[in-house]
Amino acid sequence: MIIDNLYNEAKGKSPVCLGLDTDESYLPKCISDLGEGVADKIFKFNKDIVDHTKDIVSCYKVQIAYYEALGLEGMKAYAKTMDYIRESGSISIGDIKRGDIAATGEKYATGHFQGDFEADIITVNGYMGEDAISPFYPYLKEKGKGLFVLLRTSNKSAVDLQDVEAGGQKVYLHMGDLIKKWGEGFIGESGFSSIGSVVGLTYPDEFYMLSKTYPNMFFLVPGYGAQGGTGKDLARILKESACAVVNSSRGLITAHKNKTEDTDYAQHIRNAALAMKGDITRWL
Amino acid sequence: MIIDNLYNEAKGKSPVCLGLDTDESYLPKCISDLGEGVADKIFKFNKDIVDHTKDIVSCYKVQIAYYEALGLEGMKAYAKTMDYIRESGSISIGDIKRGDIAATGEKYATGHFQGDFEADIITVNGYMGEDAISPFYPYLKEKGKGLFVLLRTSNKSAVDLQDVEAGGQKVYLHMGDLIKKWGEGFIGESGFSSIGSVVGLTYPDEFYMLSKTYPNMFFLVPGYGAQGGTGKDLARILKESACAVVNSSRGLITAHKNKTEDTDYAQHIRNAALAMKGDITRWL
Repeated sequence: MIIDNLYNEAKGKSPVCLGLDTDESYLPKCISDLGEGVADKIFKFNKDIVDHTKDIVSCYKVQIAYYEALGLEGMKAYAKTMDYIRESGSISIGDIKRGDIAATGEKYATGHFQGDFEADIITVNGYMGEDAISPFYPYLKEKGKGLFVLLRTSNKSAVDLQDVEAGGQKVYLHMGDLIKKWGEGFIGESGFSSIGSVVGLTYPDEFYMLSKTYPNMFFLVPGYGAQGGTGKDLARILKESACAVVNSSRGLITAHKNKTEDTDYAQHIRNAALAMKGDITRWL
Repeated sequence: MIIDNLYNEAKGKSPVCLGLDTDESYLPKCISDLGEGVADKIFKFNKDIVDHTKDIVSCYKVQIAYYEALGLEGMKAYAKTMDYIRESGSISIGDIKRGDIAATGEKYATGHFQGDFEADIITVNGYMGEDAISPFYPYLKEKGKGLFVLLRTSNKSAVDLQDVEAGGQKVYLHMGDLIKKWGEGFIGESGFSSIGSVVGLTYPDEFYMLSKTYPNMFFLVPGYGAQGGTGKDLARILKESACAVVNSSRGLITAHKNKTEDTDYAQHIRNAALAMKGDITRWL
């Protein structure tokens, strides 16, 4: 099961999930000066990053919005990036936050668990309930794919809906209970389910509580660095259970900015990933 | 404002929103036999449908999942379809149900309110709160774009989260209150806001109550035909306020199936749209 692989990668390499949310403005001068289309430039940058970090990170999360913003050219770069990550033997997370029902949900499964945009794991939005999740079940069973369902997001206005009190617990805990239930049929050897969740690092106490409430749930944690979370925040949780990978995107892939020699960009990014790994593991 | 245009189209032509959720299997033999790529075939089919229905429907909803399922080729067909709808002077709804925060939300706005995938209106998911909606505000103000936020969906498991009781009202009503609040700055001459919502037709009494609770909210209503809703269900609501467009996809764009002469496919689809229009308007 993919979740066992991810668990092993996180234990063996590091819980760092490197986010390839590649904006054109992040490209080093030596790439942006190339006489190629933007898709080729972005892919070249992503490829070099994968080559220089795959021994130290557990997985790559690719935020599709950055690629959709560039239209068809961007989607080409997305497809090539997803393909390269998998070809490199690394785990790819398509951060697509899709969620739709029945025939439409099946189309999303077709689109993101096979073909041009194939990912190992995708993020999904469960507002529509199990009908938006069940179209992926056959791919979890037969192709060893995985899901991270939005549970508790790390943004300020997450409280708008997620914090509404409902029968003694907040809405996000109702979502957590649903994710737990949906995941029960997909628990791997590691004890975790291939249906995990996305939980932000903005509220470390909450995250600790969630990791205790849902011991079979694996977490994708955004919010390290740019969004304020620190390695120390994670320590209490990861010490008790290696139940999460932690994403940083901009904080890593712009590490070469403001350096005099940006031809070494991939090395600067590797160093930033190593520093993040250190910041997390030194507390463990 | 786009919502005024949509309101006028719905009043002047019909509340029918034709869904171009085009699966390859829906293509008539005369198109699937062509020696072209699948993107060109699907676009040809969509184009003929637009040409034959634009005088009788208020708008077109294009479900992007059907196109993502075909990878890069599918995205080409999506881009060409969106472009053609707008070029024809019709209103396009990109049914993308995206929703993400901050920089990522801005990228979705860039991707779907300009460039290759430009739509007049998109559907979005508000689980993450206003941070997932506010990146679109500048486009609503400056480019006259619109949003339909998921409020009450029409699927069976919508109840999983949306029906959770929270402080005397269900979760979907909390979402409704948020959508109302977000939309207050974008109310047009028609009295409706360019931030509307998606409400299913599976529960007509609920929909009636929602239309009363939110008199400035315009609704995109899936669930006609394939998902069980009827024209009579809508009558009570539309009689009091022309506050909605009603989508049918498969029920219309497969109308040529099982006809002996499928070269007339666009005429069959037009007839189906006219029948749907009649089924709704005869109760008004």
